[in-house]
Amino acid sequence: MPKKIKKVYLDYAAATPVAPEVVSLVSKISTEFFGNPSSVHLFGLKAKEILEEARRKIAGELSVKSNEIIFTGSGTESVNLAVLGAARFLKRGHIVTTNIEHMSVLRACRQLEREGFKVTYVAVEKNGIVDPQKIIQAVRPDTILISVQHANNEVGTVQPVKEIAGKLKTIDKSAARPTLDPRLFAREFSSRRVADLFVPLFHTDACQAAGFLPIQPHNLGVDLLSLNGAKIYGPKGVACLYKKASVDLEPLIYGGSQEFGLRAGTENIALAAGLALALEIAGRKRKTESARLKGLRDWLIQEVLAKIPNSKLNGDAKNRLPNNANFSFKGVDGEMLMLVLSQKGVAVSTGSACTTSETGVSHVIKAIGGNRKWGNIRISLGKETTKKDLDYFSETLKKEIKKLVVSPH
Amino acid sequence: MPKKIKKVYLDYAAATPVAPEVVSLVSKISTEFFGNPSSVHLFGLKAKEILEEARRKIAGELSVKSNEIIFTGSGTESVNLAVLGAARFLKRGHIVTTNIEHMSVLRACRQLEREGFKVTYVAVEKNGIVDPQKIIQAVRPDTILISVQHANNEVGTVQPVKEIAGKLKTIDKSAARPTLDPRLFAREFSSRRVADLFVPLFHTDACQAAGFLPIQPHNLGVDLLSLNGAKIYGPKGVACLYKKASVDLEPLIYGGSQEFGLRAGTENIALAAGLALALEIAGRKRKTESARLKGLRDWLIQEVLAKIPNSKLNGDAKNRLPNNANFSFKGVDGEMLMLVLSQKGVAVSTGSACTTSETGVSHVIKAIGGNRKWGNIRISLGKETTKKDLDYFSETLKKEIKKLVVSPH
Repeated sequence: MPKKIKKVYLDYAAATPVAPEVVSLVSKISTEFFGNPSSVHLFGLKAKEILEEARRKIAGELSVKSNEIIFTGSGTESVNLAVLGAARFLKRGHIVTTNIEHMSVLRACRQLEREGFKVTYVAVEKNGIVDPQKIIQAVRPDTILISVQHANNEVGTVQPVKEIAGKLKTIDKSAARPTLDPRLFAREFSSRRVADLFVPLFHTDACQAAGFLPIQPHNLGVDLLSLNGAKIYGPKGVACLYKKASVDLEPLIYGGSQEFGLRAGTENIALAAGLALALEIAGRKRKTESARLKGLRDWLIQEVLAKIPNSKLNGDAKNRLPNNANFSFKGVDGEMLMLVLSQKGVAVSTGSACTTSETGVSHVIKAIGGNRKWGNIRISLGKETTKKDLDYFSETLKKEIKKLVVSPH
Repeated sequence: MPKKIKKVYLDYAAATPVAPEVVSLVSKISTEFFGNPSSVHLFGLKAKEILEEARRKIAGELSVKSNEIIFTGSGTESVNLAVLGAARFLKRGHIVTTNIEHMSVLRACRQLEREGFKVTYVAVEKNGIVDPQKIIQAVRPDTILISVQHANNEVGTVQPVKEIAGKLKTIDKSAARPTLDPRLFAREFSSRRVADLFVPLFHTDACQAAGFLPIQPHNLGVDLLSLNGAKIYGPKGVACLYKKASVDLEPLIYGGSQEFGLRAGTENIALAAGLALALEIAGRKRKTESARLKGLRDWLIQEVLAKIPNSKLNGDAKNRLPNNANFSFKGVDGEMLMLVLSQKGVAVSTGSACTTSETGVSHVIKAIGGNRKWGNIRISLGKETTKKDLDYFSETLKKEIKKLVVSPH
């Protein structure tokens, strides 16, 4: 009889298991409260109450107002609502982002280009971090939106969001936007205060960051912030967008007046409550869990770089999510390595789960100087990861990689 | 001590309780299988398997191919993907719909008008049913899409979808579209067969119908069909769209390549499986449950019309969903009646849960000749509805309505 293989999950950046207390809560609400929150009878009101309590809880975690939280169906939808929604509401203009954003940002931007908007994709530095000054330099008189992720989903690098926000706030006083004539945009900008006209909206995709970094929009200085449940032990199929009260968006989905008219469709109140609970737990555990995972992760990085010849770490060694390690190995096919590890019970990823890379190199790895000759895997740790798991992983890696190296000398 | 009030839920058209076996399945999958279906390691593959099994099951229920089922987050999103997606892909043209569609269709059409498309809203007859000939007459040489709901969400009237589809198939042979020059549309229509160019796409919103009517797209003759879980004892937050393989759509949400590139974002595989199970159960119970509810409902209609003076039934008496009754009462404020009934433990609705009617009369009731002087409520029955419930409801209604009538003579 075949021995049951050990299973080691090291792909928490792709998806986290749902916390048992979240599963229980979602089941309980699904069973007991089935009214449509838009109905005004007793069943509907109870459902509405649960939905609004979830909204208040999330607003509390972010230190924002309840009416600034919009529930959506995925992190990708939150990002699309922010990026497409902000741009389409303003009807024309220029957008600044980086070249290592998640596909949801990049493909939304490509779509905006097809709709007549202009987009600048600022290249990050070789360490996977964008230079704030380069973002500021890319801002033009007609720039309406900036979108920079909080932390990268592949290499885990943390972007200087707060620093960019700080510089943006002073941009109207600088010479950077001397030619902006508010009258040009009068109609489109009618709902924004004139003082706001000179500062582009700032969105950050915080989906990967929420488990580890502070995500208070006021502290970060952003107008829009995307969050989801799938990366913080919450349910999949639910996410939210923080939208500063004064910001207007064009919806992606039209119909009923749910979510302040910004996202039509009957809400899943159970999932909303599950997301709120997951975020609350994440907030409570953020510090201790980050420290624990950083310890494990730093050991892993040292171990791999020391024991495996021709290996390198992708992305800044310090300024990265505490659970992320991303390696390249010379002469190894990353896809093949991932599959071999999977056969040995170890789940890691190449690139991002959301990207099928045709070239064999993800856009992120390419942006920081990687190429096909160096096969690449992402290891992301989570709450059930132990030192034993990493021992098993690194032993397996050492064994398997030898068989895969194309030119050993 | 106050007596615990009896609770009678008669708003199944707004939301159905989730079937216990669906809640169990969703919980089980949420707990055991958390991989991201886009990951290609063992955890991801298992998740992908569950997702694709759900897709196959739904395709089986609809007698279509698996790759013609796209999961979405709500019935509203399915409708938007169909209507906005089809129109935006074709870039310009004319759309035909009715004036009693769900808000998701009507507001998507309003948005398309803002984007430069033309829309004809065909008025239904006084019985709440559209004349197929009037739909056909509205078709122009540049008509790209027709959207007619399977059954109305407020008055339950069943639309002649199959008959319209039949007439549409012959339209290219008629004189109705003599001026269509395919070369005009060559670029936009490039992916459609030339033979298809002369027939507009046909979408039906079957969200309200799925529990009671046959929903096989081939039988109905539609290219696009929207379905959701919230009305068939499935989970909220999940729905699907049937899209004929040869039809192209522009996505609403951009990012990863999930759902054949038509709906980016990490999938909730547990909800997808829950929707598949709910649809399977609905298929099994469709006949017997429809018959049971029709019996109860017909009794209720007779009872109300006989016992309550100045009452009338909205929508065709025969050609309507078996669980729907919709009444108007002269001189009664419908909103007030609904609230009073809610206080007595009875949940019914005015208009639709998705519509907040500012005028006091929903667009549907208005379209079939209703006005403010006749207050209106919708009663919708479901699997837990008993004769006892209806007795309690009709007794309560008789008592309360007397107090509410403004001019009793």
